[in-house]
Order: sequence, then structure tokens, then C-alpha cells
Amino acid sequence: MFDPVEKLKEFIRYPSVSTDPRSGEGMRGAREFVAGLLKGMGFSVEAVPTGLHPIIWAQRGGEPGWPHVVIYGHYDVQPADPLGLWQTPPFDPQIRGNRIYGRGAADNKGPLLANIAAVASLFEGNPRLPLRVTFLIEGEEEMGSPSFPGFLEKYRDRLREADFVFLSDTALPNDRQVVITCGLRGLALFDVGVIGPKGDLHSGLHGGVLRNPIQALAEICATLHTPDGRVNVPGFYDDVRDVEPWERAELGKLGADAGAYAEFLGIDAFYTPPGYSPFEAIRFQPTLEFNGIGGGYQGEGTKTVIPSRAFAKISCRLVPNQRPEAIKKLVIDAIRSRAPRGVRLEFTDQHQGDPYVVVPPGRPNTPPGQSPVLARAFRAADAAVTDVWGRPPLYLREGGSVPIIADIKRVTGLDSVMFGLFLPEDNLHAPNESFNLDVMKKGSETIAKILAAVAAG
Amino acid sequence: MFDPVEKLKEFIRYPSVSTDPRSGEGMRGAREFVAGLLKGMGFSVEAVPTGLHPIIWAQRGGEPGWPHVVIYGHYDVQPADPLGLWQTPPFDPQIRGNRIYGRGAADNKGPLLANIAAVASLFEGNPRLPLRVTFLIEGEEEMGSPSFPGFLEKYRDRLREADFVFLSDTALPNDRQVVITCGLRGLALFDVGVIGPKGDLHSGLHGGVLRNPIQALAEICATLHTPDGRVNVPGFYDDVRDVEPWERAELGKLGADAGAYAEFLGIDAFYTPPGYSPFEAIRFQPTLEFNGIGGGYQGEGTKTVIPSRAFAKISCRLVPNQRPEAIKKLVIDAIRSRAPRGVRLEFTDQHQGDPYVVVPPGRPNTPPGQSPVLARAFRAADAAVTDVWGRPPLYLREGGSVPIIADIKRVTGLDSVMFGLFLPEDNLHAPNESFNLDVMKKGSETIAKILAAVAAG
Repeated sequence: MFDPVEKLKEFIRYPSVSTDPRSGEGMRGAREFVAGLLKGMGFSVEAVPTGLHPIIWAQRGGEPGWPHVVIYGHYDVQPADPLGLWQTPPFDPQIRGNRIYGRGAADNKGPLLANIAAVASLFEGNPRLPLRVTFLIEGEEEMGSPSFPGFLEKYRDRLREADFVFLSDTALPNDRQVVITCGLRGLALFDVGVIGPKGDLHSGLHGGVLRNPIQALAEICATLHTPDGRVNVPGFYDDVRDVEPWERAELGKLGADAGAYAEFLGIDAFYTPPGYSPFEAIRFQPTLEFNGIGGGYQGEGTKTVIPSRAFAKISCRLVPNQRPEAIKKLVIDAIRSRAPRGVRLEFTDQHQGDPYVVVPPGRPNTPPGQSPVLARAFRAADAAVTDVWGRPPLYLREGGSVPIIADIKRVTGLDSVMFGLFLPEDNLHAPNESFNLDVMKKGSETIAKILAAVAAG
Repeated sequence: MFDPVEKLKEFIRYPSVSTDPRSGEGMRGAREFVAGLLKGMGFSVEAVPTGLHPIIWAQRGGEPGWPHVVIYGHYDVQPADPLGLWQTPPFDPQIRGNRIYGRGAADNKGPLLANIAAVASLFEGNPRLPLRVTFLIEGEEEMGSPSFPGFLEKYRDRLREADFVFLSDTALPNDRQVVITCGLRGLALFDVGVIGPKGDLHSGLHGGVLRNPIQALAEICATLHTPDGRVNVPGFYDDVRDVEPWERAELGKLGADAGAYAEFLGIDAFYTPPGYSPFEAIRFQPTLEFNGIGGGYQGEGTKTVIPSRAFAKISCRLVPNQRPEAIKKLVIDAIRSRAPRGVRLEFTDQHQGDPYVVVPPGRPNTPPGQSPVLARAFRAADAAVTDVWGRPPLYLREGGSVPIIADIKRVTGLDSVMFGLFLPEDNLHAPNESFNLDVMKKGSETIAKILAAVAAG
């Protein structure tokens, strides 16, 4: 059996930034690393080509009647910029205390290796375990998984033979409390460009006669929220489903401390929609965020131009039953209707994903025809978590997005058991990303127990 | 006598970007080029050290009773970015048609060389001309001339012996109509930073609980103008002096065509304060412009962060009798009072300059004690322009800023005759800057006549 921490170090060293066209080498390295690891465990491994970064499909077969779990993960990572804010280089993993630092440590290389290590230990202990395992490990998650839906469509019939999906690409609230994630927000992303004069202008010679594109952009962006924290776009909330009372109650058990959360974020005031605590807002409410804005001169000192254009990168997080296409249209229509005279608009579509929910067995709204193997996996998770962590998991939605989970459901009908392993302080998508090695170890142990119980039937 | 066009090519080849710390070589090259040219004309030349880029002080003395003109110019240029938009490299001058293309061609290397060539031809024709000429050519104009006021203070007594200042660092409306610029707008520049969470955050895990700094910045910026085109800051217009009726009438003679101007700018609607045409707004009204904005992810594709901070670079153009310090305070106070909860603000002061006006002789508001040599220079300019260009000049304020003109007046009492040579289509401060060589030639000829008439008394 390999040492998961040493393997994680090796994995992080491959700079597998899927959105960066210069990362071909890092992507290939990360892919071959994972494929080699799984081959070494006796899996038959294929790299399924996509338009961009192949998907690793690794399989351990068995008898047709055996339970069949698909474990999902991704080998790509977010860009590491701004590089200047990293204490140690993002692709040179360092252990400090019980944490390993590096881009992708928590999203998703560490959690993925916890799963692979769990499977390795399970079959090492019992090579004849009646469980079929398929790994699907993609390389385009941080780009919005553009190839994954097509892949699902193409292999729909083979994938439908499985019973459920298992993955660790969601969060724990702290290192004592496990959460089984039962919902993910969807995503709708696009860029808006505001175009004014046909070239950059001298702000002295021409200032005072035209609407500066930065001003127009600010004026547009400033209309998109209400002072009380809601998105100010007509129809935006029309399809939002009311949250179930059991979900609010379950979240209450978390005992999350708003003061500590504000301190963690470094803010002195929350800004949430009325009627929702910060912890509820993240899980049950949609958002409209500005992920970036740019225009004109941004360097040191001054350059007295009126820029020809400015842009903002906008993302909406969606909750059931909002649809990304419909939301994009509503927001873009609102922007168009609010744009001042004297500028033109340009929209660039980016990726998107549906929101997702799965209801564990025994809840008031559990669907009647739920898969028995899925229900068994949920119960196994409850028992294994209680055993290893000393308390049962909570069943909560989370604010993040793994759009392919909704795609998998739509295309193959499979639901997902999301056993998250990263912590709020792991700095995902930010400088100094890290992963808690104690959580990795306990997580791996728990996953092995869950899968063993699913196999036992 | 040297060939002014060949000399201009040589001058442009020095990338004298004063704000760029890597431009030391280019700055030194441009400085030594100008110093060498003036030495060759028999001037005694000094490079007066400043904190950054020395000021060239070149003198041709004479009898104490002779008229004494100070010719001002600058050897530094704006940054050339965005480089990708230049048709030919900014520091490799190219002649196409009757234009020379390159950074600094029009601002201010071409016009400065027109002055130097005028003086060279004048003294070549009459080496005993009773005229004292001092060139002051600085290297920090595009940074806001930070060292020039101190230089003026230090040499105040020597400079006070002169009669007036002459310069070509302002604009012509077209290549047929000369304008003697009688006013310049002032400047007040600063950056505002909006700081939210202590690090960049994942917009899924944390989106919906805090005010995004980009949103807060947009909300602040959107309050700074009224829909009808005024600056929406209490007290901003309090010190604005009413425009003189003769100035509106003089501007009317320009016969400027608003439709053609809109087409030149590439906009389909003007945005001016009520009661001011675009041409009046530029000259008689103050502005608040956003020269740059930035925050979050600005690259290709997407990065779903809530950024820790965002910033805007703001500049106000000022008219008499607004004071930069007072205006900065008003705008900053307005921003502070409008900032939403949950973010902090940070201000970075940039440079500034007072607005300036000079009234030609014979106007209703000409000051009673105006210098007779200054009055003679204005009359000489009127006659020389009529002679060379076929019609008299107009006496107009312009929208740009040459802050040191107000500094010179304040410290030494000297007024300036501003005989501009660049055209609206010259793309100052923008890609593909160019300078009209016919204008250069006629300008140089006119300047020689003006100085000859001043000398003649």
C-alpha cells in the first residue's frame, strides 16, 4: 500500500491548470500519475479523449449483481495567481504542522487521493470484496467540465449500470463534523463588456462630453443588487423552491457561529437576503457576484485616459429550480434595459451548470422510488462517520457548485453521495491553498468503511 | 540648420517614459539629444538635477533691456501600452502621408522641436537679434511635474527676470485654425481602494453573505454623476467662475461640428452638463473621470472568486477657481459617506495642478497691469498667425492640463502664451500617436515670426 501523503506531494507537483494553455505538460503529468496509481491497484485504466483534457476511466469489474459505485474526482486545478501572495510556491508542496500547502491540495487532489487510498486499502484487505468500482477522473472541472456532459451522453448506457456516485469535492464545516452534501448550487457565468469611444481618449482633451465606459459599467453593476442583499433582477427568484423545514433544522445542528465566521472572512458586516442567516444564505439562496472587473489604466501612478472599454465578469450561483439559461437571459435583459445611452454592450457566454439536490432516505420529501443501493450508501455513511468521527454526519446543501453532479443525474439517473473533506480555512481557489492531513487520513478510513458496508449489502 | 523631421525621428526613438522605472536609458537618451541640439545652436546648457529626471536649462543671454522669453517643453512621454493596438512600434517612428507616427510625436517632441527649429532659424538669420531666450525642458511632465514647482521656487529670482513664457503643448482644433490657448484645466488625481474580506474567497462557498468589493466600488462610483452629466458631489461646483461672454462668442467662431465630433469619438450620444455644448463643456466645466478600474480575475475564461479588493483611479479636471486640494477632499468625503457597510476604503493621493487663465490684451476682463512684453507677444502672435495661416488665431481655453503653467504664474508671476500644434486626430496618450508634419513646418515658421516681432519691440 502506498503512502497517501507522499503520493499527494507528487500529485501537487504537476501544475495541472486546465484553463492555462501553457499547462499541457502539467496536465499530462497529473493524468499519467493518477492513471499509473490506479493501474498499480489492478484497475483497467483508459484515458478517454475529449476536445481538451482526457477523462481517466478506471474500472474494477465483478459479478453483475454486485453493487457498483462510480467515484468521481478531477485532476485539474485552479490558476495559482496572484503568485505574489503565496508563502511557498504553489506547485512545490510543503508540509507545515498538519497541513500540506499547494495549489490543488484541497481541490481536488487531496480528497481524490483519500478516495483512491480507501479503495486500495479495502481491496488489499479483501481482494474478493463483492463491489464494482469505477473511477471517473476528469481534467476540465475548473473550466466548468465542458466535455463531461458529452462524455456522459456517449457512455450513458454503460454508466446507467452503476448504482450511485461517490465523491469528495465538497466541504466540511470544521475538522470534527462531517457533512454529507445533499445539494449544490448551479452556476451561470458570463462577461459583460461596455464599449464607449472607438479608442482610448485623453481625459483632458475630451473629458466632459461622453459617458466613460467605466462609469457606465459601474452604473449598470450598481443596479444589480438591492441595499438589503437581494439580486435586483426581475424574475430572478421566481423559480426558487422554498427550503424544507428539516433542512433548516439540520443546519441549526451545525451550531455555526456567525461572529467567528465574520472574523474568518475578515469583514465587519454581513450582507445577506432578508430572512436568511449567513449559513442559510450560502446554501438556500442564489447570488449574483462580480468575479472580476477591468478597464483603463491599472498600473502604478496615473494615466489620464478615458478608456474605450471596460468589462465585468459575472457569475450567478443558482438553487433549485432555477435554470442557468433562463437566469442568464434575465440578468442580461436587465443589464440591457439599464445601460445608459452613449455606450454599447457586448456579452461573452461562459460556462454554466444546473443546481442539484438529493434527499437522504427517511426524510419527509425522500422520493418514493429511491435506489436501495443509494439508500444503503447513505445509511452506511451515517454509521461509518459516527464510528470514525464520534458523531453522525449532517445532511446539508452547500454553496459551491459541481455542475456535473446535476448532469450525471439528468443523463444517467444516478444520484451522488458527496462526502466532503475540505475545510473553510483550506483557501480553495485562493493563494496558500492547503489540506488538513488528519482529515485526509480519517476521511480515507471512513470511505473504506462505507464502501465495505455497501459491498456487504 | 538641421532638418527638423530627421531630428524628430531621432528624438522619438528614445523611449522616454518617465513613469516607467525601466526607462532610465530612454530618458537619458532623450535628454542628451535635446541638450546636444541646443548646445549646437550656441546655447549654454545645464541639466538641473531633480529627484528623478533632470530639467534642461538652456540659455542665450544678451543685454538686460532685451525682451526675455522662456520656452517650455518636455522630453518625457506617456507609456505606450496597450502595445498590441499600435500599427507600427511606438518607438520606431514611421512617416505615412504627412504624418509621423510614434509615442511622443505630438506630445511633446514634435511641437518642442518646432520651437527649437524656430529659434535656430531666427538666430541663423540674425545672430545679433535683441532677444534673450531660455529653454526649460523637463522630464516629468507626464508624471505631473512633481519636481517642477520646487525648481521654480529655487530659481524664482532668476526666472522673474523673464517677461513671459511661450510653449506648444496644447491643441489646434484642425489644421487650418490656430488657437492661442488662454486657459487650462487643473487636475486632482487619486486612487480609491475598496477592501472587503481578508483574502480572495471562493464565490460558491462564501457567495451570498458579504458585499463583494467590486460591487461596493461600482455602487460608490455610480453615485458620482447625475444622469444629466454633472458631477454629483456636494460643493463641487461652488468655486466655478462663470464663463465670460466673449469666451463663448470666441468659441462660437470655431464653428465646430458636434456631429463630426461624435463621429470622431465613435459615440452615438454626448453626455455633457446641462447648458453646455460639448465644446463648451470641455473648456468651461470641471469633470470627474474614471481612468482605470480593476479587481478580481481579469484573464480568459472564468475564476469564481470574490476578490479581497478592487480599486478605481479617479481624476478631476478643474476650472477656475477650483482648488485641487479642496476638490479632492470633497470627492473623498462623498465617497466615504456613500461607502456601504462591510468594506473599508483606502485612498492613494496622486498628482494635482491648479487651473489657469490668461486674458489677452484688449478684452473686457484684461487685468489693468498686464506686462507690455506679454501684450506685445499676444499681438505678434495674432499678426504672425494671420500672415502664415491666412486667418487670425482664436483665443480659447482648452480642456487639457499643463499644471506647471499655473505653478509658473503663482511662483514667478509670469504668464504664458500657449501656441498649440497638435490636432484632435493625433491620438495623444493613446495608441498610434502621430503628428502632422505640415503643421510642424507652419508652426515653426509662425513661432519664428512671433519671436522676431517680440524682439523688434
